[in-house]
Amino acid sequence: MKHKFFESIEASPLGEKLELETVIRQLAFNTDGLIPVIAQDEHSREVLMLAWMNKAAMRLTLATRQMTYWSRSRQQLWVKGQTSGNVQQLIAMHIDCDGDAIVCRVRQLGVACHTGRKHCFYLDVDIANGHIVVN
Amino acid sequence: MKHKFFESIEASPLGEKLELETVIRQLAFNTDGLIPVIAQDEHSREVLMLAWMNKAAMRLTLATRQMTYWSRSRQQLWVKGQTSGNVQQLIAMHIDCDGDAIVCRVRQLGVACHTGRKHCFYLDVDIANGHIVVN
Repeated sequence: MKHKFFESIEASPLGEKLELETVIRQLAFNTDGLIPVIAQDEHSREVLMLAWMNKAAMRLTLATRQMTYWSRSRQQLWVKGQTSGNVQQLIAMHIDCDGDAIVCRVRQLGVACHTGRKHCFYLDVDIANGHIVVN
Repeated sequence: MKHKFFESIEASPLGEKLELETVIRQLAFNTDGLIPVIAQDEHSREVLMLAWMNKAAMRLTLATRQMTYWSRSRQQLWVKGQTSGNVQQLIAMHIDCDGDAIVCRVRQLGVACHTGRKHCFYLDVDIANGHIVVN
């Protein structure tokens, strides 16, 4: 989605610094106040999961360096791994060109997926044969 | 988000096959009929972009193996790179445990980002110093 603020910074020179709070205030949170966050393994670069943050979750994540999402099913802040121990430590955070998606590189303790799998994307599409293979 | 269908297949044995159309029908498209799709470079595993598909975009992507999204700003199907030549060829597709996110590994021709950058996540958060660095 086009977004004037993010358009205005596209041509900024490499290395230019912007105030973090200014950018956070401009992020394109959806009508529920949420933005999608991709958690990527710092080493393997595997995409572990996609979850959502509101502003509070984002600020907590940055302050504590523990990935903290907004649980849409429980409608509350969710410190990933708080009960299971499978926490995600924030290593790096990147915001996209439209201000409507975030990538976080994380150090995953244990597994990312509630099914016990290392990551959540375990249903592989077999494109040629038109089915899904459980992985 | 919890989802009965996807809960019911969590414990399926490794390698079990499910009919693709059955799974597509169960995907948790949002109230706009969209699901977030992460495009990941097939080689570097870099996250290139996050965009959205509706059912038609997903079926077209699978049929043509050219990444086809739903453009929320233009409200129409969007064959990525159709005008710029920066197309994305679909290499592999993976669906997550809740049926509400998709990862596609792609072969990116040219660059993924409309700003001319290789990928869209060019705003790096400098966590320690509370600012954003343009990359």
